[in-house]
Amino acid sequence: MTEPIDPTTTLLGLRASIDNIDAALTYMLAERFRCTKQVGELKALHGMPASDPSREERQIARLKSLALDADLDPEFAEKWFNFVVAEVIRHHTAAADGAAS
Amino acid sequence: MTEPIDPTTTLLGLRASIDNIDAALTYMLAERFRCTKQVGELKALHGMPASDPSREERQIARLKSLALDADLDPEFAEKWFNFVVAEVIRHHTAAADGAAS
Repeated sequence: MTEPIDPTTTLLGLRASIDNIDAALTYMLAERFRCTKQVGELKALHGMPASDPSREERQIARLKSLALDADLDPEFAEKWFNFVVAEVIRHHTAAADGAAS
Repeated sequence: MTEPIDPTTTLLGLRASIDNIDAALTYMLAERFRCTKQVGELKALHGMPASDPSREERQIARLKSLALDADLDPEFAEKWFNFVVAEVIRHHTAAADGAAS
């Protein structure tokens, strides 16, 4: 008979996975903000409209579909997207204020 | 002289990167919730305390340090972490209610 695995050992293993995933998420988020910063600069430079509601609608629909495939709550995927977009808008507003002052 | 790149082409390229990153984020988030679900089940099964404030403090400090390295606003990293943890707690509460009913 094999020894049962100590729950604390199992917990530590899961926490190690969570820590790795959180590091990956942090670096991917940083890269996402690098991209949206460039989008903001490009739009400002060429007088393109700052927001694009139809693009956002397509993004949300796509993310909800990906979430379903990944067994993630699609409503959470949408909440998450809105949370990140709010931060992008905060960055763009701060950048515009900086450029105007 | 080379032709200047059309801003719309540049925008579409950046959006393609953002879409790829969002897909990666969605799947990593799904995997994170798979892990935290297992943590919740393990803790419930073995009567381990549901929350661990010192673990959370260490996680936030680590994420802020990773954020600095990635050139991501550390305050945003902390907000993001709290946003995800709130969802984890919502899942655990829902699971406990389901188990109790």
